[in-house]
Amino acid sequence: MAASSPLPRDIRIDADRFRRTLERSSSIGPGREGGMSRLALTDADKEMRDVFVGWCRDAGLAVTIDEVGNIFGRRAGRENDLPPVLVGSHLDTQANGGRFDGIVGVLGGLELVRRLNDIGHVTRRPIEIVDWSNEEGGRFSPPMTASGCFAGVYDRDWVHARPSDDGPSFGEELRRIGYQGEAPAGGRELDSYFELHIEQGPILDAGRVQVGIVTHAYRSHGFLVGFTGETAHTGPWPMERRRNALVAAARLLVAVDDLGWDYAGSGGKATAARLVAWPNKAGILSDWAEAVCDVRHDDPATAGVMAERVLRAIGEAAARAGCEAKILDRWDWGGDIFDASLVAGVRNVAGALGYSHRDLPSQAGHDAYFLAKVCPTAMIFTPCRDGITHNNNEFVALSDLTPGLDVLLHSVVARADR
Amino acid sequence: MAASSPLPRDIRIDADRFRRTLERSSSIGPGREGGMSRLALTDADKEMRDVFVGWCRDAGLAVTIDEVGNIFGRRAGRENDLPPVLVGSHLDTQANGGRFDGIVGVLGGLELVRRLNDIGHVTRRPIEIVDWSNEEGGRFSPPMTASGCFAGVYDRDWVHARPSDDGPSFGEELRRIGYQGEAPAGGRELDSYFELHIEQGPILDAGRVQVGIVTHAYRSHGFLVGFTGETAHTGPWPMERRRNALVAAARLLVAVDDLGWDYAGSGGKATAARLVAWPNKAGILSDWAEAVCDVRHDDPATAGVMAERVLRAIGEAAARAGCEAKILDRWDWGGDIFDASLVAGVRNVAGALGYSHRDLPSQAGHDAYFLAKVCPTAMIFTPCRDGITHNNNEFVALSDLTPGLDVLLHSVVARADR
Repeated sequence: MAASSPLPRDIRIDADRFRRTLERSSSIGPGREGGMSRLALTDADKEMRDVFVGWCRDAGLAVTIDEVGNIFGRRAGRENDLPPVLVGSHLDTQANGGRFDGIVGVLGGLELVRRLNDIGHVTRRPIEIVDWSNEEGGRFSPPMTASGCFAGVYDRDWVHARPSDDGPSFGEELRRIGYQGEAPAGGRELDSYFELHIEQGPILDAGRVQVGIVTHAYRSHGFLVGFTGETAHTGPWPMERRRNALVAAARLLVAVDDLGWDYAGSGGKATAARLVAWPNKAGILSDWAEAVCDVRHDDPATAGVMAERVLRAIGEAAARAGCEAKILDRWDWGGDIFDASLVAGVRNVAGALGYSHRDLPSQAGHDAYFLAKVCPTAMIFTPCRDGITHNNNEFVALSDLTPGLDVLLHSVVARADR
Repeated sequence: MAASSPLPRDIRIDADRFRRTLERSSSIGPGREGGMSRLALTDADKEMRDVFVGWCRDAGLAVTIDEVGNIFGRRAGRENDLPPVLVGSHLDTQANGGRFDGIVGVLGGLELVRRLNDIGHVTRRPIEIVDWSNEEGGRFSPPMTASGCFAGVYDRDWVHARPSDDGPSFGEELRRIGYQGEAPAGGRELDSYFELHIEQGPILDAGRVQVGIVTHAYRSHGFLVGFTGETAHTGPWPMERRRNALVAAARLLVAVDDLGWDYAGSGGKATAARLVAWPNKAGILSDWAEAVCDVRHDDPATAGVMAERVLRAIGEAAARAGCEAKILDRWDWGGDIFDASLVAGVRNVAGALGYSHRDLPSQAGHDAYFLAKVCPTAMIFTPCRDGITHNNNEFVALSDLTPGLDVLLHSVVARADR
């Protein structure tokens, strides 16, 4: 069945099969009307993983699970000593998530290998498809935990120790659902990584552009800040002596939101994402609060200035509330991280297939950002209705998905066959 | 054993017995070093209740539990058709609470009847001592739930339906620990209600005054506010379209804290007490947030102005964040609620016993505020080291408690015997 001829240009993915596959996914862990709530390492995530592994095996892929639960399905090539081309994204969702975010990237990889099976095309290099664990961070922080571990950024034991808000740790839940594999996370050579994703922004949809060529990523700086105060009574305790950690955290989040408005004109964003306080009760001042916030800008220097302003706001918020602040975690990503020749290849494929396309940056975080640290990486965006995402109203028509899926197919095969 | 002569003025409570009783209480549900964590209707609360009921029975009291878990211990008088004089407070604590707050009021009532037993003094009217369920609101909101039910302000079924943050409802937990009694809550005539409490402020301690005569209560207005927004991605979603409920709630709490500072000069307080958001995660804007805040001032008109400013701040916070606000609950208390003749009686007793005393307002919320709606009510304050409370460093020396306990004893007996 070996074939060394190039993939014929008129080959397209099987849209109807992809639709049926996506519909099956949408039935597992449904959330609010039209949406999903398939949080990482829950029973719903396990059910989806089981179905996905079954699909991989049915497609003749060799399935491997690594020690942080990433699922790999490998399609052999003609020269199996060469590093594989990896394709994927994530199957977990936010608590009020959509049916497309991440999912179309994994199922697009599956459709890709199914299509190659249909026509008996065997690539020179092996192709692997992947589902990364806990991309969303909707249950365990930080997001992109397992791709970060694969890329060597996070230690395996640290990932296993991440707590969920509902009690058990990442490692405990991974073992409970039977997805702590034996393969080491990462540490092996990859030829390249491709990730197709919905844009999660309105640009392609507004311009009726079929395919987004992701040139770079918004520079993003995130902060997990802890504030320490002191409990006291909410009534008699004088304002001058109060050390209410909840006030410190609220002041930081308001300052961050103000900052976002300051940079909104140039497309900057600043987000007050999370606040947890203790005891957080009507009659008592809180002695502990944790806040998560981030800033993002297309211009890395501006993003850096925004991050400096967050640092100042942390100190000011703590001082105003009489509390101590400590930055418990800090992360940043984005910039010029994608591989220029891979990106050019994707652009050329989109043109050759006759699809309208445009260059644009990615504004969200993606597993691809971590993969870009270990191999040449490219992302492909599909439209996303009105840019709505992380919401049950997230929607992409099948006809808006297929161009990107076709570009993924031809880009990956061209890379694997080179 | 009938005695119709007045209680001899030289009778004092048994300080050593009171100390031992308080020490036993301090051993049940200990919290951080020196403090308590005896949240309402937990196993620790049940253990404390069991011990208290045993003490009541040992003192010859007839114990009744009502349908919201309030525990009454009745000491018969000479004329048992007369309404009883009620004495008590609460045995539950905050999550980081102290060993004295509420507890000394209940155990002070117990010591009172024990002392009367010692000397064989039978009052004309019956005396009842009481432990009110869930005064603190440290697990179920609102605080003072069960005294409010007793006073007819809260409906029994509504109280039973109050949810805990950890899952089960008030009614479920009440039944689990075996303290849903059959007696109706309230609806019966009381002669009067006395509550001894630590000041929870620094005035008596700073002035080395032995007994506080509580003349009135700070006027307090509280608000539970819900904000509705929309989930979206924290990255690409434009600032202009964001409807982050967490931002709305944080803006309200900052405005409330600012308001407290505006009135700090005249002793006013405004408190950002609680914030809960959903999904409250790093990658997603929250579509729901709840905030609890309150304002308090000695001058009712000023407290009213502060409340108006909170109402404006709610609207402004919601508008700034593109959210809708709804006031889910609103409460107010305080003012000129205590019975003038009862208060004068307490003041006279303090003078007659030779204790230094001063008039002062109460700034915290107390079960007595609800009791004042159904019968003549008075409160007695003891000092409280440096005013620290709702904190494990709350402390009152035994010698700072006994004067107030003696005043309670003589005030209650004078009232019961009149």
